[in-house]
Amino acid sequence: MGPGPINAHPRVLRAMSADLLGQFDPEMTRYMNEVMALYRPIFGTDNRWTLLVDGTARAGIEAALVSIVTPGDTVLVVNFGRFGLLLKEILGRIGARIETVDAPWGEVVPLDAIKQAIERSQPKVLATIHGDTSTTMAQPMDGIGALCRDADALLYVDATATIGGMEIAADAWGADIVTGGLQKCLGGSSGSAPITISDRAAALINRRKHIELGLRTGSLDDVDGMIIGSNYFDLGMIMDYWSEKRLNHHTEATTMLYGARECARIMLEEGLAARFSRHRAAGRAMSAGLRALGLALFGDDRFRMTNVTAAYIPQGIEGERVRQRMREDFEIEIGTAFGPLAGKVWRFGAMGYNARKHKILITLGALEAVLRAEGYGCQPGLAVEAALSAWNEA
Amino acid sequence: MGPGPINAHPRVLRAMSADLLGQFDPEMTRYMNEVMALYRPIFGTDNRWTLLVDGTARAGIEAALVSIVTPGDTVLVVNFGRFGLLLKEILGRIGARIETVDAPWGEVVPLDAIKQAIERSQPKVLATIHGDTSTTMAQPMDGIGALCRDADALLYVDATATIGGMEIAADAWGADIVTGGLQKCLGGSSGSAPITISDRAAALINRRKHIELGLRTGSLDDVDGMIIGSNYFDLGMIMDYWSEKRLNHHTEATTMLYGARECARIMLEEGLAARFSRHRAAGRAMSAGLRALGLALFGDDRFRMTNVTAAYIPQGIEGERVRQRMREDFEIEIGTAFGPLAGKVWRFGAMGYNARKHKILITLGALEAVLRAEGYGCQPGLAVEAALSAWNEA
Repeated sequence: MGPGPINAHPRVLRAMSADLLGQFDPEMTRYMNEVMALYRPIFGTDNRWTLLVDGTARAGIEAALVSIVTPGDTVLVVNFGRFGLLLKEILGRIGARIETVDAPWGEVVPLDAIKQAIERSQPKVLATIHGDTSTTMAQPMDGIGALCRDADALLYVDATATIGGMEIAADAWGADIVTGGLQKCLGGSSGSAPITISDRAAALINRRKHIELGLRTGSLDDVDGMIIGSNYFDLGMIMDYWSEKRLNHHTEATTMLYGARECARIMLEEGLAARFSRHRAAGRAMSAGLRALGLALFGDDRFRMTNVTAAYIPQGIEGERVRQRMREDFEIEIGTAFGPLAGKVWRFGAMGYNARKHKILITLGALEAVLRAEGYGCQPGLAVEAALSAWNEA
Repeated sequence: MGPGPINAHPRVLRAMSADLLGQFDPEMTRYMNEVMALYRPIFGTDNRWTLLVDGTARAGIEAALVSIVTPGDTVLVVNFGRFGLLLKEILGRIGARIETVDAPWGEVVPLDAIKQAIERSQPKVLATIHGDTSTTMAQPMDGIGALCRDADALLYVDATATIGGMEIAADAWGADIVTGGLQKCLGGSSGSAPITISDRAAALINRRKHIELGLRTGSLDDVDGMIIGSNYFDLGMIMDYWSEKRLNHHTEATTMLYGARECARIMLEEGLAARFSRHRAAGRAMSAGLRALGLALFGDDRFRMTNVTAAYIPQGIEGERVRQRMREDFEIEIGTAFGPLAGKVWRFGAMGYNARKHKILITLGALEAVLRAEGYGCQPGLAVEAALSAWNEA
């Protein structure tokens, strides 16, 4: 019950034990095409180029940024937590000129501030996290895409921590690339990064495309843009691999593809609206229960992610001892925190297969028992009651 | 029965359906430590830094090269097939000054030529493929490490296609980094790249290390080397993640780690000598059987990999029709070819779980039936007989 990785859905685990297929076997390429179709509604997009990067969520982020950002390009980072800093870190290595528009941890960046920052910095790309688990805040996306179009900037969104739990609306947001991971609300295993790429971004990437020696017929001079700094993360090559051309690139991570496919099938069977509603109920119940224990929540209530909630560690209680007792006595993992929040808050996740009523109730009951054993004064029974009632609210 | 990816061992598939663990759960970190210990004998090394890169084999190659090569460094590539060209391609993107010492497809590069090329180019790094499936040749490694030490160059070896099937002797070779993949002779699934790093290479990498904002205490000025161009492939950060420090980087690909661990356990249970001997028998049997069908083999017999064999497509036979019949009538996949060999040879793999007597015999029997149906004249029964007899040779 931490902020991810989480317990995978049992169906996903079973899918990942299926026999392998050759990478150009018609059955395999059919699965690849299915994955493209399955992830379009999950990303809220009609983008043709909706596929998987073979690596963890962080691989998806780097693939997106290295494929659209050329050294010297200005990139504006919407920075409100640790993963905004990660975007800066990756962009720095690419050689981007980085501008930021910041919010303190626990808040989000107002649209007005983003507008001014775009006017000031004239970025080629605006990069933002959707939900940053380090602060538990979700940046509202409305309006950002329009600002980017007006400024002729591309919009990149990292939705690792929200995909599968909160609505992703790549097309409505006007996002050019959105990336995710399986190991949070999609209820899968880390190691595959779903990505969607707008036609506008794909056109830019294809101008920078590189075809491998020994596979291509033309010469290096055919490339009219600046070559992408990574072979593994060259989205142009990855699109060619996922297209009818099936141009050999890496060897598709078959087991992870089976897992990604099953995550998406489960999500679409449940229905997007039902799934988001379930995560909202889980977040509501977790927050209510933690408050009923007398714990103060971290961050702005209005922008809290539905799937992860941070609560201050009470005075006189050792946070790590509580985490250890939770794990050892109850087999429940809860999250620690990073940077300015290290040692100050715990983070409670309710993601994917874990965003279920009984798991929230059991977690809160266990936490109450552990806190009492650690000498924290609270009235037994209130947390579970409050959570149950909050879950059942409309 | 192609040159990989192959059928995974059933135990590996089962391991990959196990429940997930949190990335810092003591059980998970114990598995990570076990993986480090299990892969040392497989790489033939005592290197402390023996771990996994979370991506396909190609991710391991890029992580190795981007972590040790700084833009402008001279790298000498031992080039005898498509994967030598891949090394050049990746190095070009890193900004290396690339020199090559080449052999025609079907041959390997003589040690003398390598010696002269080192003297001529004074490389910082020498990079070579061990076994190149595109040509089915295995470069002899004896003597290359000593030449590199004498020239103060690092030695990088890509063993993707040989690890688990042919001996890897990182320490005896004097190799500084060796990388592999699971999807060939290790009998696993693509998506995890085992890697081993010498202390000498680790020291170089750590001078270029970068600790993420929000995780580190020092400033960027602490870095005295040139920062590695990729965050995801920064082996310094990955080593910190696998060390007792457990500094957060990517979220370990848990399912792939389970798979990598099981591949290694199976290999060590079988025993290295028995495993290499089994692959040698498989290669011998496959070659004998193909020759008994009247097919000419491609490449220099002395340097042929034990786990993949290329045979010329006979005059008048359509290669792709044969591959299709093999797949549709017998559910057996055999390999096509790249570049100068495209349309000229088939490639027959015998890797990991597929390097077994009955699979070789069945493949040859099926091929004979398909070839005869396609109008190729050969005497029935000879191929299987020849293969069985070759398998049983000492």
